[in-house]
Amino acid sequence: MSDKTVLSGMRPTGRLHLGHLHGVLENWKKLQDEYHCLFFVADWHSLTTEYADPGSVQENIHEMVVDWLSVGIDPEKAVLFVQSKVKAHAELHLLLSMITPLPWLERVPTYKEQAENLKDKDLSTYGFLGYPLLQSADILIYKADCVPVGVDQVPHVEFTREVARRFNNLYGEVLPEPQHLMTKYPKLPGTDGRKMSKSYNNSIYISDSEEVVAKKLKRAMTDPQRVRRDDPGDPDLCPIYDYHRIYSSSDQKEFVQNGCKTAGIGCIECKTILTENVLAELAPFRARREKLLKSPGTIRDIIEAGNKKACEIAEKTMEEVRGAMKI
Amino acid sequence: MSDKTVLSGMRPTGRLHLGHLHGVLENWKKLQDEYHCLFFVADWHSLTTEYADPGSVQENIHEMVVDWLSVGIDPEKAVLFVQSKVKAHAELHLLLSMITPLPWLERVPTYKEQAENLKDKDLSTYGFLGYPLLQSADILIYKADCVPVGVDQVPHVEFTREVARRFNNLYGEVLPEPQHLMTKYPKLPGTDGRKMSKSYNNSIYISDSEEVVAKKLKRAMTDPQRVRRDDPGDPDLCPIYDYHRIYSSSDQKEFVQNGCKTAGIGCIECKTILTENVLAELAPFRARREKLLKSPGTIRDIIEAGNKKACEIAEKTMEEVRGAMKI
Repeated sequence: MSDKTVLSGMRPTGRLHLGHLHGVLENWKKLQDEYHCLFFVADWHSLTTEYADPGSVQENIHEMVVDWLSVGIDPEKAVLFVQSKVKAHAELHLLLSMITPLPWLERVPTYKEQAENLKDKDLSTYGFLGYPLLQSADILIYKADCVPVGVDQVPHVEFTREVARRFNNLYGEVLPEPQHLMTKYPKLPGTDGRKMSKSYNNSIYISDSEEVVAKKLKRAMTDPQRVRRDDPGDPDLCPIYDYHRIYSSSDQKEFVQNGCKTAGIGCIECKTILTENVLAELAPFRARREKLLKSPGTIRDIIEAGNKKACEIAEKTMEEVRGAMKI
Repeated sequence: MSDKTVLSGMRPTGRLHLGHLHGVLENWKKLQDEYHCLFFVADWHSLTTEYADPGSVQENIHEMVVDWLSVGIDPEKAVLFVQSKVKAHAELHLLLSMITPLPWLERVPTYKEQAENLKDKDLSTYGFLGYPLLQSADILIYKADCVPVGVDQVPHVEFTREVARRFNNLYGEVLPEPQHLMTKYPKLPGTDGRKMSKSYNNSIYISDSEEVVAKKLKRAMTDPQRVRRDDPGDPDLCPIYDYHRIYSSSDQKEFVQNGCKTAGIGCIECKTILTENVLAELAPFRARREKLLKSPGTIRDIIEAGNKKACEIAEKTMEEVRGAMKI
């Protein structure tokens, strides 16, 4: 067990899918055994893009945390909390805003990129420009040593290091510079072959019933060039094979590869093997979820305890920050 | 007594001078008899320009509040508090940042102007761009009806109205649109004829001793064209006559006008009349100050009680704001 602190957050999108499971949560499960972990619901962050229709944030938070707990994120090991309940994030964000050059924010690569991608939303807001700084406050307020990120998020951690360095130069050493922990996200497409995403309606959710999972996989897209049962297929072009890479044993993968390429097996047989593996993975999560949902107070208590713990750590840093800034 | 709320703040610049007294504090004294008043130390605001050297903020806050109290700002009538002790200002600022278009901030007239004026400081920061929004949060969190401002600050209140309107359009009516209370600042130049300012070393402070006030006035600049005692002077060109306008009776003003224009009196005689009037005004302030400084605990208690009261009002608004934004 390292004595280092890891911080990671997710926007409250509601129910999580297999993409989240293998991209984020499986990583968190490893991290919580190795580090002091803080995992948080980034509800303020979701306002940077969803301000015009914040929708059912509270319900989304609840569903997401249930998913966390059901897959094995363990409140005995990690501090689980909700960003907006730790008001000091807003205070640090404000204080850091005073020393953060505008061009640093304008140059964050995701800024223009995301504004382009979400053209249907008006993102020319002060808050959207400042969201990397809010992330910096999230990280620095816990003096996090490491932040697990995908390759596109590395510039945000670099930005955070620059902000910390500037703070320390101006006011003395208070905020340690965090490092990124590069995380590989295995490719797990949606049932239509595109990126798995709620908005594409192509997701398999952690909380889906066995029947729904089986049905979704049954209808899922395969190699589009394998039209008839007798056509040989190419696993490298088949979204279902991306699942096998994650879910199946070496023997199973070899069997499926050969069977597909030689038209020895059909897509139904291939999917049957996969479906069993997926259901086997999800079964213990489902059992834990059912137990959790029988006592909804537990979930609330876990979050409240996490919020309290996070507030304590944050307040300790803020005392140092205010002292250094003489405010 | 109106049931309207008035909010006004001052940056913690330390000891206040006669410019502050007649420009701000005399106005506050009237307002506290007519409205529910909240007067605050804008210490976070001072960081927007002074971040690189926050200096002795705590000492400045103390000195400024002592000046407030000594001139008659009354904690029984108005809530006196320190901005940074009401953390909810930072939370509201963050939430409002999500809905505030960048161009609104870039277009605030004081933005480019002040950045020009303070060229020796690097003000191309995220916080400096956002300071009108922090002002908006200051105002809206108390649902202030009126904000006393000079003519150059009117656009800030207009900006606040726009932000409130946008919030209400998006989330429902929560934040009332504040009005500005136009305040006239009587002209009161420094002892060298320029604007009275700490940095010009030309100020007469509320806390100056009688001797110091008399000495400063004695040496103060007069009509530069009246070189000898026998030269007739022009009161309209004399900084001292600007003081007479505020401090002297009609009879005294007439006497000084005639005496100056005809060289009937010299500058010393003119200043003697003025000095007596200034000292007469400052005498009760000095007495109150001496009493206050004998029990420094009182000042701390007043501020702590004001902070607590302000936190309560702010928290009530924040509950509505969070409810409306579903966060």
